[in-house]
Amino acid sequence: MPNPVIQQMLERRSIRNFSGAPVSDKDLQIILSAAQQAPTSVNGEQISLIVTRDKDTIRKIAQIAGGQPQVASAEVFITILIDFNRTANAVAMAGEKQLIDQCAEGLIVGAVDAGIMLQALQMAAGSLGYGTTAIGGIRNNPQALIELFGLPPRTFPLLGTTLGVADPDKLPRIKPRVPLESFALNERYDNDKVSAGIRDYDVTLRHWWDAQGQFDMPSYIQSTTNYYKVDYFPTVGEALKRQGFGLIDIKS
Amino acid sequence: MPNPVIQQMLERRSIRNFSGAPVSDKDLQIILSAAQQAPTSVNGEQISLIVTRDKDTIRKIAQIAGGQPQVASAEVFITILIDFNRTANAVAMAGEKQLIDQCAEGLIVGAVDAGIMLQALQMAAGSLGYGTTAIGGIRNNPQALIELFGLPPRTFPLLGTTLGVADPDKLPRIKPRVPLESFALNERYDNDKVSAGIRDYDVTLRHWWDAQGQFDMPSYIQSTTNYYKVDYFPTVGEALKRQGFGLIDIKS
Repeated sequence: MPNPVIQQMLERRSIRNFSGAPVSDKDLQIILSAAQQAPTSVNGEQISLIVTRDKDTIRKIAQIAGGQPQVASAEVFITILIDFNRTANAVAMAGEKQLIDQCAEGLIVGAVDAGIMLQALQMAAGSLGYGTTAIGGIRNNPQALIELFGLPPRTFPLLGTTLGVADPDKLPRIKPRVPLESFALNERYDNDKVSAGIRDYDVTLRHWWDAQGQFDMPSYIQSTTNYYKVDYFPTVGEALKRQGFGLIDIKS
Repeated sequence: MPNPVIQQMLERRSIRNFSGAPVSDKDLQIILSAAQQAPTSVNGEQISLIVTRDKDTIRKIAQIAGGQPQVASAEVFITILIDFNRTANAVAMAGEKQLIDQCAEGLIVGAVDAGIMLQALQMAAGSLGYGTTAIGGIRNNPQALIELFGLPPRTFPLLGTTLGVADPDKLPRIKPRVPLESFALNERYDNDKVSAGIRDYDVTLRHWWDAQGQFDMPSYIQSTTNYYKVDYFPTVGEALKRQGFGLIDIKS
């Protein structure tokens, strides 16, 4: 019998239909406090959150994310920011100038820490019975969110999560994954295992969609191709530059 | 009384001293399987792991990460890769060509998903009683790790985690965080709250170090300044380029 943490993780699914039941202030505080104990690179704490409860604002975020009903119907939306403004303020208090926001390392640290925070928020929320879905779609138009939240230079809205009570009549099935042995490789990378895993998984995911009557949903190979043959959020680079991020070590 | 998930999260700390007790194969499989259910952007599953159990290799990783005893003494080291090789293979199977690894969006997706995976692995490990520390230090010399693991183009070793049984006599205290109200901002960014939080936190963290007799450890402002006034892992950009990543939308 798995422990409650493992059980919650194995049963994780993205909740896109909410019942409309409220999220209590007390639970929200517990979720935020628990997630904040997650690690950050060099304990820089270069992550901040914008917690949106205002329904009009949540609807605006849904529009910015490309018109997503799953966002519009959430009770709370939490946006995860890379916040090198906090660290720049700290560095300025020491009489120095921050460089890290101009480097590939900075963007990587910020994005990794944002991912850590996303998972921490969703684990905490899930343990209290709430449903969530990660929303990368806010990068559809980062500039609009920057203006909506009044984000200063050196901050960037990287992704967010919905939060609400799942509609029990519309719970999705748990989505399968690529075979474990093609995901967790022993000692060295193995391209044969990774490639074989793709072919296996494409069949598995096809059956998973078909079993729900969603015959038109593309399976793994086609879905990945549809997304990744193009730069599907093409304004991210420009928005990063406008927020003052540089990548001097990549550009040179 | 918080539930087991919240309790584990609130008590989270980075374990840097291991007892030398083993990690069972069964537990490792549970950790990997549970973590794999974490979400990935557009279900692209652009994350792979290299699981290192070989002690000589773990010692090599410790050297690559800048000579870290906490890595050398771990029972297992798990390296988290951005794996746009998997997705490139999938796109090629559909007769198309992947573009996303040439864009800022791709690097962001990969890094965010790596962070999600880090937190998922550590949560699963912690629930089974194991200790972990996130190791970004592998970016000290990404090229060495790329060669050690035989990593193909479009993959990148972003960070890793140690895994082992904590030495009960050397458990660290739980590290404080910036004030919650300066981390989770309501509705809009508030630079005054963020700045006030830095000053508060600098005092809190100073007291935390002092209470452990570590009077020489820099507090938040000085620590952040030491790291972020320089590009402390300056070969990351070059290694990304060598692995075939581009950032055409930032460079232009």
